[in-house]
Amino acid sequence: MFNIRTDLAVESREIYKEAYKEEVPGVDIETEESENYTITRVTINNEEGEKKLGKARGTYINIDVPGLKNTDQELKDEISKVFAKELKSICKNDENTKTLIVGLGNWNITPDALGPKVVDKVLVTRQFFVAYNKERDETVANVSAISPGVMGLTGIETGEIVKGVVEKIKPDLVIAIDSLASRRMERVSTVIQISNTGINPGSGIGNKRIGLTEEYLKVPVIAVGVPTVVDAATMVNDTMDLIISSMKKQAKVGTDFYSLLDDISKEEKYSLIKEVLEPFMPNVVVTPKEIDILIEDLSIIIANGLNMALHHGIGLEDVNKYIR
Amino acid sequence: MFNIRTDLAVESREIYKEAYKEEVPGVDIETEESENYTITRVTINNEEGEKKLGKARGTYINIDVPGLKNTDQELKDEISKVFAKELKSICKNDENTKTLIVGLGNWNITPDALGPKVVDKVLVTRQFFVAYNKERDETVANVSAISPGVMGLTGIETGEIVKGVVEKIKPDLVIAIDSLASRRMERVSTVIQISNTGINPGSGIGNKRIGLTEEYLKVPVIAVGVPTVVDAATMVNDTMDLIISSMKKQAKVGTDFYSLLDDISKEEKYSLIKEVLEPFMPNVVVTPKEIDILIEDLSIIIANGLNMALHHGIGLEDVNKYIR
Amino acid sequence: MFNIRTDLAVESREIYKEAYKEEVPGVDIETEESENYTITRVTINNEEGEKKLGKARGTYINIDVPGLKNTDQELKDEISKVFAKELKSICKNDENTKTLIVGLGNWNITPDALGPKVVDKVLVTRQFFVAYNKERDETVANVSAISPGVMGLTGIETGEIVKGVVEKIKPDLVIAIDSLASRRMERVSTVIQISNTGINPGSGIGNKRIGLTEEYLKVPVIAVGVPTVVDAATMVNDTMDLIISSMKKQAKVGTDFYSLLDDISKEEKYSLIKEVLEPFMPNVVVTPKEIDILIEDLSIIIANGLNMALHHGIGLEDVNKYIR
Amino acid sequence: MFNIRTDLAVESREIYKEAYKEEVPGVDIETEESENYTITRVTINNEEGEKKLGKARGTYINIDVPGLKNTDQELKDEISKVFAKELKSICKNDENTKTLIVGLGNWNITPDALGPKVVDKVLVTRQFFVAYNKERDETVANVSAISPGVMGLTGIETGEIVKGVVEKIKPDLVIAIDSLASRRMERVSTVIQISNTGINPGSGIGNKRIGLTEEYLKVPVIAVGVPTVVDAATMVNDTMDLIISSMKKQAKVGTDFYSLLDDISKEEKYSLIKEVLEPFMPNVVVTPKEIDILIEDLSIIIANGLNMALHHGIGLEDVNKYIR
Repeated sequence: MFNIRTDLAVESREIYKEAYKEEVPGVDIETEESENYTITRVTINNEEGEKKLGKARGTYINIDVPGLKNTDQELKDEISKVFAKELKSICKNDENTKTLIVGLGNWNITPDALGPKVVDKVLVTRQFFVAYNKERDETVANVSAISPGVMGLTGIETGEIVKGVVEKIKPDLVIAIDSLASRRMERVSTVIQISNTGINPGSGIGNKRIGLTEEYLKVPVIAVGVPTVVDAATMVNDTMDLIISSMKKQAKVGTDFYSLLDDISKEEKYSLIKEVLEPFMPNVVVTPKEIDILIEDLSIIIANGLNMALHHGIGLEDVNKYIR
Repeated sequence: MFNIRTDLAVESREIYKEAYKEEVPGVDIETEESENYTITRVTINNEEGEKKLGKARGTYINIDVPGLKNTDQELKDEISKVFAKELKSICKNDENTKTLIVGLGNWNITPDALGPKVVDKVLVTRQFFVAYNKERDETVANVSAISPGVMGLTGIETGEIVKGVVEKIKPDLVIAIDSLASRRMERVSTVIQISNTGINPGSGIGNKRIGLTEEYLKVPVIAVGVPTVVDAATMVNDTMDLIISSMKKQAKVGTDFYSLLDDISKEEKYSLIKEVLEPFMPNVVVTPKEIDILIEDLSIIIANGLNMALHHGIGLEDVNKYIR
Repeated sequence: MFNIRTDLAVESREIYKEAYKEEVPGVDIETEESENYTITRVTINNEEGEKKLGKARGTYINIDVPGLKNTDQELKDEISKVFAKELKSICKNDENTKTLIVGLGNWNITPDALGPKVVDKVLVTRQFFVAYNKERDETVANVSAISPGVMGLTGIETGEIVKGVVEKIKPDLVIAIDSLASRRMERVSTVIQISNTGINPGSGIGNKRIGLTEEYLKVPVIAVGVPTVVDAATMVNDTMDLIISSMKKQAKVGTDFYSLLDDISKEEKYSLIKEVLEPFMPNVVVTPKEIDILIEDLSIIIANGLNMALHHGIGLEDVNKYIR
Repeated sequence: MFNIRTDLAVESREIYKEAYKEEVPGVDIETEESENYTITRVTINNEEGEKKLGKARGTYINIDVPGLKNTDQELKDEISKVFAKELKSICKNDENTKTLIVGLGNWNITPDALGPKVVDKVLVTRQFFVAYNKERDETVANVSAISPGVMGLTGIETGEIVKGVVEKIKPDLVIAIDSLASRRMERVSTVIQISNTGINPGSGIGNKRIGLTEEYLKVPVIAVGVPTVVDAATMVNDTMDLIISSMKKQAKVGTDFYSLLDDISKEEKYSLIKEVLEPFMPNVVVTPKEIDILIEDLSIIIANGLNMALHHGIGLEDVNKYIR
């Protein structure tokens, strides 16, 4: 996919459509619009779809909330509930499901700290099931949570730590929370992606080499992510495209120019940008300066949604009640 | 041991001596004094010693540094080196030893965050051994580190997480860092204890129920701890003893009084205090208000010492060079 | 008042009553009990009351909420509202009142960081009044806020910084938020005190030497405080009293003992404790280990209450809506 | 200056030279190269220089340290010393100088928190001069420090707070520390700028409207800043220029193309980018994801340098000794 760095399936599809002017074959799209948000469900059905989008087969739900950067408590609560509903639909969990929440990322690097921050806020209950030696409870399900850290801090692949814990505590379901990279700055902290494909090597900010997938962990893995960074080269690339198309529309320059720009293929252009930027900023990913506040808000929205989706006794009306 | 809450072997011995006016049987004591610190090595040799001190058999090294609360960089560097030397003597590690550092405690509760803070600062190298598929290196040994969190945050016993990871990555040695409880406020953040007994259930601040011991993990476990809290009841109890002995010396009250006080046994007095305090502060442990700063300083001292003790290419002259 | 360190008027009164077995002359007490909290209003009417209680003339409102340590969101919201109502009754502010909120304390020392944390969360509006050059607004009043820091960090008396700012921006009202010392651990983080006396030298944790009073700043000063620390000597002293009274009741010791204990006056006993403790812990104040979490929760409750009390367009139903 | 957002005088000069292929008139440049760093002194002598560079008359010292992002303790210590020497040369302070350090910026937004972090670490002494009522000391000078916060948190212009404090404590010199915007990502956290012009409205990240200048405060103001963010539009613009010049060199496209690109003036191109980006990211400034760690390191380097430059009894050999 032209090496454009994105962890969002909707962006992969967007890039494909921009390039080929057609919908991606082997992929179903479903859109649901509301006043404050749009839900897009991208389902990759077969190998062709996998190859075209460069993403694993499965369903990717994107909740896109342009206004999420603002401090509107009602909107936040609304999105917690929407997220809870979508998560529950994809997890297919019930009161007997034992869930392990995994907060991926580095707690010392703010844009990478979403996962650990969610783990710190979510309601965990497994210890009571163990202490009272019971299998089920009237109001809560069996939920545990870990923040394994990143390889740079631990010296250990995140996947190995999670697998070690999964083998010990044997959950029925793993939900992994991660910070993602997007191609566009306006998507940073405004999109929540939920997918049933797990987390694949190289995705997220932390460049994992072992994935967190059902194949590896032997339990279903749901991935929840929010873009918190943009790859600088991607940002420059996309802006140049916008500029060229803007110049075309405004006919600010002669006609020869267009044909010349069309001569440079997309791949060529992107690698040119990479080459030029490399000496100055090797693999720079950038983040908005308000990221501390954005991550704090997002971690509450997601922890809230997890509480409502996982525990049968916690309803949508209980938003904010069980946040630590 | 009269239920007085302490994780320090030197304090258990102190309490024994106060009560029985004799050295503890089955226990060897060795003391080494320097200008800025005193090292006490307590070795519990047999079952009698274990029972008398309420601590597992093994060696407990205490580095006592009364001036450690001050901001004297030279003293801190000196103690990093002393700690590195003592740690190396007890670990018996060499350049082939694969070490897993475990930072116990809750990163959200400052006095309990020593372990996780050390993990964030220590130099980890295992990822390079894995990436280059090599067994040894000229300058560094194979070191990894995790902060498993506490059961209240994860829903999982710390011991289970550590065991899961140990089974996956198979280290030769585990070094567990923990925050401890002391009986005396003046020992908070001024004593470093190293022991080859591992960490036993109920020790430290976080009330673990599964220990981190060689028996459980199947590899040697070295425990490193620093007192960061004092149990309120213990503090009151000890102060009362000081007052009584002070009153005796000063003969401020009549002679009948002494005999009366002697009538109340130590056990009786402590349980009386517990009973009286319970309704007001159940299991309150207290900490100095500057604890944020003390923990930050201690984590640097300990991470420094670990770097020098574990890596054969990092000498005592390299203090502060490899701190993250 | 026997040098027992407390910043709470209700505790000064309690100490007086314990000592003299009578209500304090020159002082009015009014109590209002609810299911979850008790409000006590202590009004010191004259010089006699001032001397007996060692506190400045004025009204001290104490909202005592034993359950505030728990994570019950509904209780927190209720207390935000109760606090807003009491604060409004003592501030007598209206939509034209220009208020400066002053967050006292050291942001690097958790138990002293309540004031700065409230300032970070409260809604400030003065900049809009200045930008649009208007005197009043339909929904919000003119509110500004500063965290002056402590002398140890700034080298400047807090009072001087506040006075410099007050002279520049000329507010009608100053509300100072501070961390307080209590005599009892069970009051830490469960009592909110509001008073119209300002903040006097030596009160709070940070040992101010210049007070923040109407006399000094030339505008009315409302003080809001919550105990976050206990003086160790005070804690020991009070526990000993509890023990003695418990021993009396249980008649565990002979009758001579009582008379002996009665011989030691309260003053004598407290200074004996101070003397004994001094070498080990000079001026130690202690705090519960969960203080990080308690301060975070309290700062939200107080910022919420300030928002509702100061802005005429923010009602009690808007709790949590304008927290940053 | 083509609206390109930069707070660095060396970058303004660079932009001028790129556009006009000549040295800026009315401006002196002096360069000093060392193994690890380059010092550039830009002196704007007259009104012409002011206009050409869009910066106030005065001297701007830039210490450029490409390797500063790495964790090399020796390099950090070296740069602390270089910074101390340059700062002293521009401050012309002596043992009688009373200095007020002002840490500008928002402590809750990491890339804007450099100033407050320096204030938290620097050695302040004014309180001792006041307490002992003395005018001079053998080892330290009279230094105080404040973090006034930003208008979004306080509702008060930073300049007003600082002026209020300056009028109260009457320092001889103000040193203001601020986070800056650069045009290039590779300069973020690798350049320290010192200038004797004070801080002008609109500079730094926080968009101040009142400047901190000698004219306003009535005492000399030295500004110290480090770039921590890059304006996204500027980054795109510069990258496009790099690409065009790279394309020219490689002759990848036909000759007509160059002339076309040359037809679009620099101003036109920048405003085109702004226009195109605006709907997607209005005024977005971006920062590297490791910014938390970079800011921590920089604050230590600068606080160290301030300690050595301001106190006559603290020499270059005392680096790291008086950091809090």
